[in-house]
Amino acid sequence: MPLIDRHTSGVYVIAATPFADDGALDLASIDSLVDYYAARGVDGMTVLGVMGEAPKLAPDEARAALGRFIGRAGSLPVIAGVSAAGMGALAGLSQFAMDKGAAGVMVAPPPSLSTEDTVAGYYAAVCKALGPDIPVCFQDYPQLTGVKVSPATILKLTRDHPQIVMLKHEDCPGLNKLSAVRAAEAQGSPRMSILCGNGGLYLAQEMQRGADGAMTGFAYPEMLVGVVHRHLKGDVDGAEDLFDAWLPLIRHEQQPGLGLAIRKEVLRRRGAIASSAVRAPGPKLTAADLAELDRLIARTEARVAALGERLAA
Amino acid sequence: MPLIDRHTSGVYVIAATPFADDGALDLASIDSLVDYYAARGVDGMTVLGVMGEAPKLAPDEARAALGRFIGRAGSLPVIAGVSAAGMGALAGLSQFAMDKGAAGVMVAPPPSLSTEDTVAGYYAAVCKALGPDIPVCFQDYPQLTGVKVSPATILKLTRDHPQIVMLKHEDCPGLNKLSAVRAAEAQGSPRMSILCGNGGLYLAQEMQRGADGAMTGFAYPEMLVGVVHRHLKGDVDGAEDLFDAWLPLIRHEQQPGLGLAIRKEVLRRRGAIASSAVRAPGPKLTAADLAELDRLIARTEARVAALGERLAA
Amino acid sequence: MPLIDRHTSGVYVIAATPFADDGALDLASIDSLVDYYAARGVDGMTVLGVMGEAPKLAPDEARAALGRFIGRAGSLPVIAGVSAAGMGALAGLSQFAMDKGAAGVMVAPPPSLSTEDTVAGYYAAVCKALGPDIPVCFQDYPQLTGVKVSPATILKLTRDHPQIVMLKHEDCPGLNKLSAVRAAEAQGSPRMSILCGNGGLYLAQEMQRGADGAMTGFAYPEMLVGVVHRHLKGDVDGAEDLFDAWLPLIRHEQQPGLGLAIRKEVLRRRGAIASSAVRAPGPKLTAADLAELDRLIARTEARVAALGERLAA
Amino acid sequence: MPLIDRHTSGVYVIAATPFADDGALDLASIDSLVDYYAARGVDGMTVLGVMGEAPKLAPDEARAALGRFIGRAGSLPVIAGVSAAGMGALAGLSQFAMDKGAAGVMVAPPPSLSTEDTVAGYYAAVCKALGPDIPVCFQDYPQLTGVKVSPATILKLTRDHPQIVMLKHEDCPGLNKLSAVRAAEAQGSPRMSILCGNGGLYLAQEMQRGADGAMTGFAYPEMLVGVVHRHLKGDVDGAEDLFDAWLPLIRHEQQPGLGLAIRKEVLRRRGAIASSAVRAPGPKLTAADLAELDRLIARTEARVAALGERLAA
Repeated sequence: MPLIDRHTSGVYVIAATPFADDGALDLASIDSLVDYYAARGVDGMTVLGVMGEAPKLAPDEARAALGRFIGRAGSLPVIAGVSAAGMGALAGLSQFAMDKGAAGVMVAPPPSLSTEDTVAGYYAAVCKALGPDIPVCFQDYPQLTGVKVSPATILKLTRDHPQIVMLKHEDCPGLNKLSAVRAAEAQGSPRMSILCGNGGLYLAQEMQRGADGAMTGFAYPEMLVGVVHRHLKGDVDGAEDLFDAWLPLIRHEQQPGLGLAIRKEVLRRRGAIASSAVRAPGPKLTAADLAELDRLIARTEARVAALGERLAA
Repeated sequence: MPLIDRHTSGVYVIAATPFADDGALDLASIDSLVDYYAARGVDGMTVLGVMGEAPKLAPDEARAALGRFIGRAGSLPVIAGVSAAGMGALAGLSQFAMDKGAAGVMVAPPPSLSTEDTVAGYYAAVCKALGPDIPVCFQDYPQLTGVKVSPATILKLTRDHPQIVMLKHEDCPGLNKLSAVRAAEAQGSPRMSILCGNGGLYLAQEMQRGADGAMTGFAYPEMLVGVVHRHLKGDVDGAEDLFDAWLPLIRHEQQPGLGLAIRKEVLRRRGAIASSAVRAPGPKLTAADLAELDRLIARTEARVAALGERLAA
Repeated sequence: MPLIDRHTSGVYVIAATPFADDGALDLASIDSLVDYYAARGVDGMTVLGVMGEAPKLAPDEARAALGRFIGRAGSLPVIAGVSAAGMGALAGLSQFAMDKGAAGVMVAPPPSLSTEDTVAGYYAAVCKALGPDIPVCFQDYPQLTGVKVSPATILKLTRDHPQIVMLKHEDCPGLNKLSAVRAAEAQGSPRMSILCGNGGLYLAQEMQRGADGAMTGFAYPEMLVGVVHRHLKGDVDGAEDLFDAWLPLIRHEQQPGLGLAIRKEVLRRRGAIASSAVRAPGPKLTAADLAELDRLIARTEARVAALGERLAA
Repeated sequence: MPLIDRHTSGVYVIAATPFADDGALDLASIDSLVDYYAARGVDGMTVLGVMGEAPKLAPDEARAALGRFIGRAGSLPVIAGVSAAGMGALAGLSQFAMDKGAAGVMVAPPPSLSTEDTVAGYYAAVCKALGPDIPVCFQDYPQLTGVKVSPATILKLTRDHPQIVMLKHEDCPGLNKLSAVRAAEAQGSPRMSILCGNGGLYLAQEMQRGADGAMTGFAYPEMLVGVVHRHLKGDVDGAEDLFDAWLPLIRHEQQPGLGLAIRKEVLRRRGAIASSAVRAPGPKLTAADLAELDRLIARTEARVAALGERLAA
């Protein structure tokens, strides 16, 4: 499997972790989920992220899930989320992932960090613990971690550590941060691959600002693929038209907390996973939520279909 | 001027506070801004909210702005944001507002509150300080205040204090909270007027869940008015069609921090205010931001115009 | 081993988890650490708490440590910290602990909870997952979890769930919360055992407010035992004299973040554990820190010795 | 009145702001409070800080209080807290303070700042707005502001802006941050005056790490003066002995939130101010709090008196 590098582009979908109704890890659904993503044209997957409910997995479950995802993915690159409270656990899971054939690892700063120099110190320790051969994606997600990082610190990380090749961009507002990283590159800073998160809520604008693609978990990966690939081929307007058509559902699925339950319900309906269960403690959809989702899906699918006819015409 | 009550509905637009390029309060632009809002059919205004940069106003400026807004508004009801660190300042500004003719006051819990019983205690003190004749809107905005409030506490507030007649709903995710308040009313809890914030990002769904309208600050008030009034007249689908057409711009303007600068830039372009200045410290739009905004506006206006033809047809 | 109940009192020391210099779990040091605590007269131990670096343990390590602690403790009751991101992991670890002979489990609310009704809902789910026979200590530590809980909610938890028998009190300021719980008991609310944390920083006052003892991790357990047991025997002044003599060191060890490294260094010096290593990422003591600690220890030991002569006289 | 500079040392007590029982600003008590502080040997005062309830003052009240403090202080230097949500308000209050004879201003970063480069940008704007002649104290208080600042950023601020001459040090744990600033000075970074806050909880250690004094608000200023002045004269042990004797009360008064009510109650009892009122919303002492305070004071005064005899002997 190829490793991620500073020019990686496309859609690395954040994979959900499927559970049975009773909360048990559902390995068979991992297979169907991988097939579902692959059939819709994603360029890779990221597994064991926050949206993959990684913190709720026991370590043996994490390894079982990771192995299954990578095994089923075949030639499709898989990035492993390895954020963990202890450095030993992080390094151990990373090595396991790479041995299984992962394309790289993703690391978010732990919430216990405070100032930006402690962030730099932490990533120096991470790189030392991993050894120089494992490529790393830096996840910049202050809404979740509480750790705020300047563009200058991101640039320092990727300059000091050649293995930090990718930025998962999901600060918000973050468009100017993305532009700042790209501007620094124009001044000689080493290039980073930038893939964008935040449920895709700003994806069209992020591509126009110079992102290389998406790394997020929308339940209809064809939206992510359609927007990113159209854009990369130069069809900026078509990409944004498609994005806008999907936006009511993107925004709905991006609600903090509740969004994961919505996403899994859609994946279940589409046959990608057997159960929409989110591990406790987690949100459950109410009858009102389900009716609302029915309506939003019907409206979105009609709008996208109409657009498809127009784009094809 | 009529007071807000438990059945108030429609659009109470959150008014920007206009400043000159040098940061001075621009009273003349208050007049043009009020006229701009009124011409687009809003049902009322809320002034001196967070989006009105209230914390950056000196008290004499706050009173000058408030007086000017209310004076120009004529028969249009005006709700005064009066959240302040000290109870005396809050009560004093409230009395000033009511004397000038305000329709009620809006109070958010101060960040220093912790548990929900301290919230209840705080609003008891607020109501005592205001006296029983000033109607109060409870602003539920935990993303800003850090104060988390259960539906049970909201219901207790409005039950214990007849003057707490309105909920400004902007928790997120918040749709089920809105439903919980409405469900309690069906069981005998006193009705509240519920107007929704969060930049309107969930407005169509909130109306479908039983909201009475919007209280937020989108730069094109005709969107808020169109969606809310269509919905109140029973055209649920038309309201949502209109909402969806505007959504790319709604989402763009709702970015935390940056959104206010975008909003003021649009208001300036449309002649509602003379300068887009945000008081320091505050965001400034970059060249990339401005080009992006041009593109989003052009696309949105074309989409809304096309929809208008279809809705009219 | 007896179970904790509503009348449990004394000192349940929060046990450090010993690691070797290379970060490996050091099971042999668990034995010496248990012996160290037992020799100084503690009434029980709490293991796998935050100060026990539980989040940095792999699950198999957590079980190995837990088994070793309980095995060595003999008749000394051991409470197991079982807070975990997933309910299944929490219940599994709890059952493991009880099967090994634990006296009960301690559960803190996960940071993802928001309003107090979600706290109540979470503990209902916890109690259901545990079954009715496992006694639970509710850990109230908002400085760490961000979850703020009124006395009313604590009282509801212990009333609704007979198995929630103990409060680990470490809100700050928290003295009036402690008094509020005791006052409610005087009005008929079921009694809770209240053991206090926060590094013992308010221990003398907490005992005077009606606490049953301490559950915290000071490196000199003889201080905790001396203060609590003297107080329980009625020597209120002597207990506070002893507390005051230790306070400079208590306060020093209670510094957030750094305190754990200080504590482990003291435990190492006293022969309780083989290495003062804190698992990465974690603080390391500088030369200045070590010299400062030398000075504080020398001064404290002299003061305590002088007091001992006076108390004995 | 002399201005603060890079060598300022001693005790700049954080002055409480006195209110009448009904919450009105009590100007007469400002006079008695200044006299109280002066009689106990402080080297200066800092007014309108957080502990001075500055956010609860109307701007005209802030100016009235500031003028009264400075007028009464005579030759005693007064630093004015001028943190405000808007840059114009900050600059206006600063100019007012300097015109009245203040020795400098203190500015904390506003909570809306995020990354450390935004902190640097904010202070550049502050210095520009103030002009080069007003000396500035940078308040580093992340527990309150949420803004985390590396030593490198503090050093950059004082290097880039000659007028930023003083650090109010109250990060926690912060002893190594203090040492880092002093170590950088030894390498050629410009010297800063460092005065310490946090209620004095670490004052003895901070002096030993190289602080120049205290800037905090303990109700017995003779403790601050005694510890700092003894230390500056070279009596390190005597300074720490005195500190330790006071520590039970220092720690008690330093409780977040509640501490201010305790401090004002002590100031009232000692005749420094007429009323212990804290402006709403704020804590009120219960009967249990008052009895506890009586006991702590009696014990502390006895201990300090005994120590005094020993130190004098």
